[in-house]
Amino acid sequence: MASGAGNVEAFLRGLIRSGSIEIVLPGGRRLMLGDGSGPPVVVCINDRLTLARIAAAPYLGLGEAYMDGRLVFEQGAIRDLLEIGSRNAASAPRGPQPGPLRRWWKAMRDERISRAAARRNVAHHYDLSLNLYRRFLDPDMQYSCAYFAHPDMSLDEAQVAKKRHIAAKLDLAPENRVLDIGCGWGGMALSLAAWTGARVDGVTLSTEQLQVAQSRAHAEGLAARVNFSLTDYRDVAGTYDRIVSVGMFEHVGRANYQEFFNKIADLLADEGVALLHSIGSSGPPGPVNPFTTKYIFPGCYVPSLSDVLPAVERAGLRVTDIEILRLHYGQTLRCWQQRFAAHRDEIATLYDERFCRMWECYLAGAEVGFRNGGHMNFQLQLTKRVDTLPLTRDYMAQAETALASAERRVA
Amino acid sequence: MASGAGNVEAFLRGLIRSGSIEIVLPGGRRLMLGDGSGPPVVVCINDRLTLARIAAAPYLGLGEAYMDGRLVFEQGAIRDLLEIGSRNAASAPRGPQPGPLRRWWKAMRDERISRAAARRNVAHHYDLSLNLYRRFLDPDMQYSCAYFAHPDMSLDEAQVAKKRHIAAKLDLAPENRVLDIGCGWGGMALSLAAWTGARVDGVTLSTEQLQVAQSRAHAEGLAARVNFSLTDYRDVAGTYDRIVSVGMFEHVGRANYQEFFNKIADLLADEGVALLHSIGSSGPPGPVNPFTTKYIFPGCYVPSLSDVLPAVERAGLRVTDIEILRLHYGQTLRCWQQRFAAHRDEIATLYDERFCRMWECYLAGAEVGFRNGGHMNFQLQLTKRVDTLPLTRDYMAQAETALASAERRVA
Repeated sequence: MASGAGNVEAFLRGLIRSGSIEIVLPGGRRLMLGDGSGPPVVVCINDRLTLARIAAAPYLGLGEAYMDGRLVFEQGAIRDLLEIGSRNAASAPRGPQPGPLRRWWKAMRDERISRAAARRNVAHHYDLSLNLYRRFLDPDMQYSCAYFAHPDMSLDEAQVAKKRHIAAKLDLAPENRVLDIGCGWGGMALSLAAWTGARVDGVTLSTEQLQVAQSRAHAEGLAARVNFSLTDYRDVAGTYDRIVSVGMFEHVGRANYQEFFNKIADLLADEGVALLHSIGSSGPPGPVNPFTTKYIFPGCYVPSLSDVLPAVERAGLRVTDIEILRLHYGQTLRCWQQRFAAHRDEIATLYDERFCRMWECYLAGAEVGFRNGGHMNFQLQLTKRVDTLPLTRDYMAQAETALASAERRVA
Repeated sequence: MASGAGNVEAFLRGLIRSGSIEIVLPGGRRLMLGDGSGPPVVVCINDRLTLARIAAAPYLGLGEAYMDGRLVFEQGAIRDLLEIGSRNAASAPRGPQPGPLRRWWKAMRDERISRAAARRNVAHHYDLSLNLYRRFLDPDMQYSCAYFAHPDMSLDEAQVAKKRHIAAKLDLAPENRVLDIGCGWGGMALSLAAWTGARVDGVTLSTEQLQVAQSRAHAEGLAARVNFSLTDYRDVAGTYDRIVSVGMFEHVGRANYQEFFNKIADLLADEGVALLHSIGSSGPPGPVNPFTTKYIFPGCYVPSLSDVLPAVERAGLRVTDIEILRLHYGQTLRCWQQRFAAHRDEIATLYDERFCRMWECYLAGAEVGFRNGGHMNFQLQLTKRVDTLPLTRDYMAQAETALASAERRVA
């Protein structure tokens, strides 16, 4: 046992080479990890089994220990611990993935997500109480990467700027028919309709989101032009001038990418434009951390561009632009965490302490993934024809400016 | 024989479904292809063997027949014929590639280009007489896709705009050390140095290009800051703040992509930025037309983004932006053809008629490839760190505007 514990300690020391983490072990002995730089994080771990679990599967072990109250902070917080961990992981030499992880990753990577599984996966997360999401999102309920057009923007402003940024890339005309795949609580669809006069169909698999989106369409007087429905994107029919999908592609499943882009190609008019906004990975394809897929987003996958582009090319779609938003999502998640923390007591009443810790771990883990872990958010613009969009990208900034002045005139 | 000829005619009829091509056969019979739309192209083919060769391998057969004077125009020109052909090919249902073509393509795709082969391939094209290139390029000798920032720009203006566009994406500072891989006749390196004060090393494998580039550096008083050499990029040593490569990646060879991006990663400073400007294909990976690889650019390959990104990701580089220039190269090639035609007599004296026809076929084929064949030009921006560049793309347009006003002040 003593030797086993010694091995675990040596392994943890190997993981953390910079920063300062102090672990208070059962019995009170203190294990120091790192090089002593930066503000120290001090955690108490109540039992040796928890320590071994963390060593065996750092992401999952840490998340579960924190959720279950077996890892308690004497100094610092979960975000500080994850920040040090992710920074060290990013600079670690990349060895081969261990056998079981590789097998698990291959199984997960190749899993085709059925309509039933897609609905279950969505319900798991997006059917959580609206009161929860209201506590940490902006008033428009944008649950995806904001666009900080200026560094000093508030989250609320940056979420409006994101919608403008996407609307500009869609190069919309008032007569356009638009499809919004994964419309969430309806914010994007409603803004596109209100700003441009377009007719928008929004589809979601979340009954909670649908209800909110429909109420908003009525309240905002847009029900005649914006139609929301509970529909799997694979079951949408018709032809659309514009297709937008924001923060939904993460749930499509890698094995379904070809089906996804073939469907986009089927639905898009010959002169059409599609814009896909999704979390991505800057590195080669690899597994999502198991804490996220187990507790937060079952079936989710973070694609590398090399995962996505073969399917786009085979579907006969043309890539016309790829923007990589790098630190915008880290900043977005920082804002969400601050709002979550400010409403933590209410959220604990709504759910419980364990739920709060689970979500703190999720939001903090996601943030450090964007800052240190190679995550990014890409905006992929697609057409069918070579001559659909203007010759240069200047129209994007021009449309964005025009939308912003139009809003200022309304306000 | 009669039945064989009938088969060939039926096959050609199947290839051309829209537009009007009239073939005057040996003996005077006229074979009408297409639906009679548009201005007719009338070609005389002197022998049945040529017709069979075109049917067996349309690109190569057509190019060789034209070069060798076995296909002569009674009405229209080679560009019109290629335009109709490429338009029909683009709308044809894509069948499986025939056996020999697939085998040839796999062999070509997987060929590793040695240093010796790279030098031979470069010499074949770029060591052609400077007097030839002077006849059809802009005065700065930019032999790659121009950037028509405004639709009414001249080629000369659009080539300067291209250099500004790239300089802006490099986010250059005066103290930067820049590497230009495949520097051509030196225009990009000299402009970057003159505009920003940076120190630039340019490498080429063409002795002809090197000589011109070095003379220009002296003549423009930039020899102290710009150094040109005859060096394979694989043999460059040191660390660079910025790396730029324009129109060279087409010659790297698909099997060498990992080596190429690993080398970029080795040479690039941690805070560095790289910008790769290359012809690409919007479709899935596939062979380059055999006329081009046989007569114009031996060893060249037109990459799909799905060819490029796996190697980028594995090299540990981050994609920070991908711009797809679509019709810019079609327009560039149109201008080159017009200038070539205006100096055709001089070029025929420099080389001969067959060379002129070979190059007409190359330039026209390339143009229609960009207009109808799914070719494009991508600009891939890369960094190592997540926080190297500004948060939004606004800096690009700002830097471009600043460079343009600085030039106006100088002029």
